[in-house]
Amino acid sequence: MSKNLVLIGFGGMGTRHLTRLRKVEEITVYGIWDTNLAKRQLARKKGYKVFTSFEQVLENSNVDIVLIATPNDTHKQIAIDAMRAGKHVICEKPVTLSTKDFQDILDVAQKYHRCFMVDQNRRWDENYLMVKKIVDEGKLGKVYEIRNTVQGSRGIPHDWRRFKKQGGGMVYDWCVHLLDRILMLKSRTQLISVYADLSYVLGHEVDDGFRVILRFADGMRAILEVGTANFIKLPEWYVAGTTGTMEIKDFELHGGYVNLVGELAKDTIPVEAGAGFTKTMAPRNDNSIIHHELPNVTSDVCDFYRNFVNWIDGKEAPLVKNNEVMWTLEIIDDIFKSAKTDQVIHFADYIINSNT
Amino acid sequence: MSKNLVLIGFGGMGTRHLTRLRKVEEITVYGIWDTNLAKRQLARKKGYKVFTSFEQVLENSNVDIVLIATPNDTHKQIAIDAMRAGKHVICEKPVTLSTKDFQDILDVAQKYHRCFMVDQNRRWDENYLMVKKIVDEGKLGKVYEIRNTVQGSRGIPHDWRRFKKQGGGMVYDWCVHLLDRILMLKSRTQLISVYADLSYVLGHEVDDGFRVILRFADGMRAILEVGTANFIKLPEWYVAGTTGTMEIKDFELHGGYVNLVGELAKDTIPVEAGAGFTKTMAPRNDNSIIHHELPNVTSDVCDFYRNFVNWIDGKEAPLVKNNEVMWTLEIIDDIFKSAKTDQVIHFADYIINSNT
Repeated sequence: MSKNLVLIGFGGMGTRHLTRLRKVEEITVYGIWDTNLAKRQLARKKGYKVFTSFEQVLENSNVDIVLIATPNDTHKQIAIDAMRAGKHVICEKPVTLSTKDFQDILDVAQKYHRCFMVDQNRRWDENYLMVKKIVDEGKLGKVYEIRNTVQGSRGIPHDWRRFKKQGGGMVYDWCVHLLDRILMLKSRTQLISVYADLSYVLGHEVDDGFRVILRFADGMRAILEVGTANFIKLPEWYVAGTTGTMEIKDFELHGGYVNLVGELAKDTIPVEAGAGFTKTMAPRNDNSIIHHELPNVTSDVCDFYRNFVNWIDGKEAPLVKNNEVMWTLEIIDDIFKSAKTDQVIHFADYIINSNT
Repeated sequence: MSKNLVLIGFGGMGTRHLTRLRKVEEITVYGIWDTNLAKRQLARKKGYKVFTSFEQVLENSNVDIVLIATPNDTHKQIAIDAMRAGKHVICEKPVTLSTKDFQDILDVAQKYHRCFMVDQNRRWDENYLMVKKIVDEGKLGKVYEIRNTVQGSRGIPHDWRRFKKQGGGMVYDWCVHLLDRILMLKSRTQLISVYADLSYVLGHEVDDGFRVILRFADGMRAILEVGTANFIKLPEWYVAGTTGTMEIKDFELHGGYVNLVGELAKDTIPVEAGAGFTKTMAPRNDNSIIHHELPNVTSDVCDFYRNFVNWIDGKEAPLVKNNEVMWTLEIIDDIFKSAKTDQVIHFADYIINSNT
């Protein structure tokens, strides 16, 4: 039987969830709550059942699931109240602005035996899944570097995302995705250190971009970058291995990967390049490189909601595990610390293992 | 009257100098010395006067200039011997493998009143000069990030560049260029810190690539990167300013720059992107961006040699100043230190001023 869901927060992300949920027959959108009167009126106009208070949502025994899509600083109290009232909870990312707040949520979830899952929706991005497939299948040899660069040119939107207290800024908005995915990709690999640098070029109180470099024990580096004043985009993904390189330029999936044929340093002839002469940087215009198209992947972000229902029903383990989300939050604390102090943060014995 | 130059080291870079010097009427190539018999025979075959020993070069009073294009670990002794014998010296980069060795050279130059100049030839690269022009003219607004990325896919050449003792590796081969140029570009700006990471993915004893991040007091970041196992190239230059972005893809000067028209965050409409929804990363497909071609610059690396002769004759100040080269060497020491310890190195009161 379908489960009844109430959306809390009828904003951009909230309406996006409603669109997705139309394809999820396991869930029925039962109603909406928003603290803002105009948004409640809009929801009613669009035909949704609108509650007259959050307490009404909690008291309604028909409601199985509460989906939280409110500003980041309000997630915790809503989640705790909902679970105490017996509801299961889906929560937008970033789940909270501190690991302590998240632990408080998890303690309540455990006490009341409720399912609590964070919407790490960008694990379903096709470009990420293509990278994961190529890396996992060893198509590039030993991968020594993964760059994930997300660049916009529209600054930070005119809303709560510009304010620190509400959890604004690009680290909370995007690094939670980029970090989460890299940690999934490097599952069971020791993380050695993190270096982070935040940008404040647009003059807001929150970061408008970041550069995060993670060193892993196997020698791999992940470089995660976001910018909001980039009028030319760098490739979104760039993956370098000892025998191949992969590039995905954008969300529209332009790109491909190449493989080396034969020996790396064979037959190198120096070339003129600018005001200099170079052997090392001589291009390959020969047949020593094979070009491939990006691999096929299938992805349906609606599986997130289906998995949540199956978790509630005891049929599946959660796809987004709370300990994974906790690692991300822990490292985000270190990212802020690294950026503020201009220091590398080292991890002692930090093994990422999605099976713990 | 033209000055007589003897080339020491008839290898790749040495022959490159000879080609360039054909266009420099202020200098006559007087002869060659190389410790390797086969190379001396080759030079003789090509019609050059070949000395029978280095001592003969030193004793020959017709020789005004010695040009050193030997492996990096041999520069110092040759330079000192040449200046003691009254010759002026042009030296390949990196000048030495330590600041102390370079200071020893400078002490001899001062004592014997000889001109000593390091061939920082890549200051004449057109792509660099284009970046410098656009940045200096403020075409991109306040520039907050400059990336200079040089990538090859041929590993390290099969020669002394693979060995530590001889000053091999990509930091000595390329970072001396990239760093030198950024320091020229940021002349008179305080350098705050450096973070460096060297790659050893190809299994040599020397680094096969690096990532260096410099933070400047005005908020700008420089990211300098070299790789030798990159089968797809990232843009060689990427310059981000608050109102524009510039990209130069390669030595062949493909690229351009764009400028924002109007307000950064105006009229942002969310878009579907992958498995998510984003306002921040919505592309600009409208008329709010103007595209420009790369600017015209003129560059003649032969000016390096002409300037050297004019310096000897007291007509010009040197274009490549030894204190500039010393800063680069000092920071290279810090780069090795940062990479080895995985720590950020901070500078107290480090102001780069090319006029000191």
